[in-house]
Amino acid sequence: MDMLWNGWGDPAKAAPLPDAVTGVLRDLLGVKPHSTGAPALEDISVPEPALEPAVFGALADAVAGEAQVRTDAESRVRHTRGKSTPDLLLIRAGDVTDVPEAVVLPATHDEVLAVLRACARHGLAVVPFGGGTSVVGGLAPQRRAFVALDLRRMDGLLDLDPVSRTATLQPGLRAPHAEALLAEHGFTLGHFPQSYEWATIGGFAAARSSGQASAGYGRFDDMVLGLTLATSRGTLEIGRAPRSAAGPDLRHLVLGSEGAFGVITSVTVRIRPVPQVRVYEGWRFASFEEGAVALRRLAQDGPRPTVLRLSDETETLIGLAQPDAIGSADARQGAGCQAIVGYEGTEEDTSHRRERAAAVLRESGGVCLGAEPGERWAHGRYSAPYLRDALLDVGAFAETLETATFWSRVPALYSAVRTALTDTLTRAGTPPLVMCHISHVYENGASLYFTVVSAQGEDPVAHWTPAKHAANEAVIAAGGTISHHHGVGTDHRDWYVREAGVLGVEALRAVKDRLDPDGLLNPGILLPLD
Amino acid sequence: MDMLWNGWGDPAKAAPLPDAVTGVLRDLLGVKPHSTGAPALEDISVPEPALEPAVFGALADAVAGEAQVRTDAESRVRHTRGKSTPDLLLIRAGDVTDVPEAVVLPATHDEVLAVLRACARHGLAVVPFGGGTSVVGGLAPQRRAFVALDLRRMDGLLDLDPVSRTATLQPGLRAPHAEALLAEHGFTLGHFPQSYEWATIGGFAAARSSGQASAGYGRFDDMVLGLTLATSRGTLEIGRAPRSAAGPDLRHLVLGSEGAFGVITSVTVRIRPVPQVRVYEGWRFASFEEGAVALRRLAQDGPRPTVLRLSDETETLIGLAQPDAIGSADARQGAGCQAIVGYEGTEEDTSHRRERAAAVLRESGGVCLGAEPGERWAHGRYSAPYLRDALLDVGAFAETLETATFWSRVPALYSAVRTALTDTLTRAGTPPLVMCHISHVYENGASLYFTVVSAQGEDPVAHWTPAKHAANEAVIAAGGTISHHHGVGTDHRDWYVREAGVLGVEALRAVKDRLDPDGLLNPGILLPLD
Repeated sequence: MDMLWNGWGDPAKAAPLPDAVTGVLRDLLGVKPHSTGAPALEDISVPEPALEPAVFGALADAVAGEAQVRTDAESRVRHTRGKSTPDLLLIRAGDVTDVPEAVVLPATHDEVLAVLRACARHGLAVVPFGGGTSVVGGLAPQRRAFVALDLRRMDGLLDLDPVSRTATLQPGLRAPHAEALLAEHGFTLGHFPQSYEWATIGGFAAARSSGQASAGYGRFDDMVLGLTLATSRGTLEIGRAPRSAAGPDLRHLVLGSEGAFGVITSVTVRIRPVPQVRVYEGWRFASFEEGAVALRRLAQDGPRPTVLRLSDETETLIGLAQPDAIGSADARQGAGCQAIVGYEGTEEDTSHRRERAAAVLRESGGVCLGAEPGERWAHGRYSAPYLRDALLDVGAFAETLETATFWSRVPALYSAVRTALTDTLTRAGTPPLVMCHISHVYENGASLYFTVVSAQGEDPVAHWTPAKHAANEAVIAAGGTISHHHGVGTDHRDWYVREAGVLGVEALRAVKDRLDPDGLLNPGILLPLD
Repeated sequence: MDMLWNGWGDPAKAAPLPDAVTGVLRDLLGVKPHSTGAPALEDISVPEPALEPAVFGALADAVAGEAQVRTDAESRVRHTRGKSTPDLLLIRAGDVTDVPEAVVLPATHDEVLAVLRACARHGLAVVPFGGGTSVVGGLAPQRRAFVALDLRRMDGLLDLDPVSRTATLQPGLRAPHAEALLAEHGFTLGHFPQSYEWATIGGFAAARSSGQASAGYGRFDDMVLGLTLATSRGTLEIGRAPRSAAGPDLRHLVLGSEGAFGVITSVTVRIRPVPQVRVYEGWRFASFEEGAVALRRLAQDGPRPTVLRLSDETETLIGLAQPDAIGSADARQGAGCQAIVGYEGTEEDTSHRRERAAAVLRESGGVCLGAEPGERWAHGRYSAPYLRDALLDVGAFAETLETATFWSRVPALYSAVRTALTDTLTRAGTPPLVMCHISHVYENGASLYFTVVSAQGEDPVAHWTPAKHAANEAVIAAGGTISHHHGVGTDHRDWYVREAGVLGVEALRAVKDRLDPDGLLNPGILLPLD
């Protein structure tokens, strides 16, 4: 099934806003709910594809048939940009300036190589397309014309080694499909980001994704043991051992490269047995600071839960920690900050960890709220993007951004980003609600995930841009990373360049120049144009 | 204190071979013990340094004084090559073909930059020198003339953040000194490779070192949160968060780069509280295969000990798992394979892990040998290189090599390397003892560490070379990595190039060309000359 072209996910799952949210929007943010009346897909005016017959033929040859080269308007609109709020606002406004000339669907690694060769010959740029869930402008290259290389036909489980506990997956596999294939053998990947239902294995690798159960299963880049990369100059295969001292770890040159060096055509990952038990519970802390200390204690001294998240006071009050219960009396009961703490594994292991972690959480001031908030979180864990659609539908603005740093810098980073967002949007006449949670923890630091809701303003994209830039500036100034798990794309690129530094960017540019000498792949994404 | 110039470590710790070993050498390997009568340092004939006065002056200016530019024969001999067995055999034979023209001792990052600039101006190559413990030819560049850049004066603790549990260390710090500085604050790094007593922080990072307690503390590259690199083109600073999705993880471009891109001038590492408890015990398994399954179970399903090692039948029989007890009745008691299992941490955590791990080990066929073998191992854990010196002294040959792969390939890799070494040396008339242990475990695989002992043959370096090459071929053919923790240097380079592949090498070459455009740094080390 295709994702909703101008919003998130499965259109059948769209839900109207709860009355309580409408009340918050009206009373707190001055949003006057109204339908924004976006156009239908067939009403969007898409320019003819700039594709000579010879080029179309070359692409069709590369993928063994014209059926796998789509130039119809619907296919092209469906591959225009990703799923950031600005992306949705633009497509809802009928803006298709970033439309690909064609959508090409290779079935094999060799077909990917052939597409790259054909594009090199004809000067076409190439944008690899997995789930299309980028929220950082990762699908809007800065050079025209381009083809979207949709990897959906490469969706197989190539190999599974139960002794080594490894599996080799194709890049176009969506995460639920990958989990289903692994579950047939009793295994799980354990990677559950909010984009889980739609995102793909190749995308997780290219963007260094991190899932909601990262405390237990690790980040996606922790799971990757091997990779195959199709480049304009041939194939790069990486991964002969779990770890090595044979030169720099080349896996980490491909992970996070966001399609700028080549197209990931297979990923070998670590797999684990499907857990016998999954328990999620709610905890409450008097303050974000107190809760953060509790999370830090668990991250540093253990035992490590599988899921560990903490909402700040505002997010707890609004109840965004449980999107299904927003505005309900249940979500608002009590003050302070809510944490979700989850355990997955064997019966014995989870009960041991849960008991000892509970002692640490209590010692740190936590009050257990029992299983219900945990179950609610688990039930609604992938639904926040649907809520965003509903907010946009009634004329509100909603967007998220995220960062990470070392523990001692977390309070200052939290405060700096909140202030930047609040001040900028307030000055622009749309005072926002800024909510935050700690979404991923490490021994040495944590990530902060911010959600902003406000009135839209006249031109919503132009209205948001200064706030987003102010948040990026605040992140860099406070010593944070410009992205903990969304990636760089085009939206973060100018700040990423400052984070990586002149020589960091030059090193990556050197790699790109060598592997993609014609600059075909994702021009302007991750790295600036020359 | 300086390390022994023609052997390992502290000359005061040298010990004669136990009689039992002499017996093994004579009866099993046909070694006729005799003193090899190596020359004294002052008898070695060292050519005059090829250093014009202007060049000497430029170097002295870079490090603020002539005293920090050493051109005397002793300093230069002490910086000639590393500590592989061929390195020791060559220097004992008075071979100083790889001698540096000078030893330069910078005190700061800026002085390192200045030295690189001076060397670029005068066409001198530069070889960064930490502990000088390379066993892969990592200090013998393939371009003359060069200076050894000895980092011993950069040996400070620059910063310690007890909240984030991070410390920033200078590269010339030897590991015991780093541990002492951290212990003043109640912390440990937890990195204890066999080279521990002499190796440095910068070397650990440059070569992707792995310590004996890696099951608990992780590898050195797991510990690194940030790095500063001095290059010919300026400074690269990396590390704003424990983890990030902002592009490829540049830390992993520097880790393992073996000085080919730049000089590491600071390393920010994860630190942990000094453990309350350290317990090491011995276990015995009927076979290497049975023991490996037990280790795999602990690595995959936990609980994870801090130290986890398993000797094969031969190594167990000889008793190399406990170098202090070699040949003793104690070391030989019982058949099968000995494992060392250690726990470090809090009282509660270690006792819980120990109890549950013991159950797994027993279920897997293990028999607990109690604390004594563990204590013996801990006592002798850094002494194997002294034993090698004693073997070389009496005319025997001893060398080690190591690799890693995924669990399902471990048996074939083990067998292939053993066969390659045994066959080659037997054909050459010196049938060897080949011993092996699993030294590091991961969820998805393990490393194999081989020790070879034989008679020396006429020209011992020439005698060993075909066996080493055969082992390298076997590693690559069996799907292993050419090095799990020793690195590439010059000895593994030609096989590393095959492991990394054409595009992998080209990507790294592109980085080198950009950061070190004159090719000054470690020419021919890691990457082949152009």
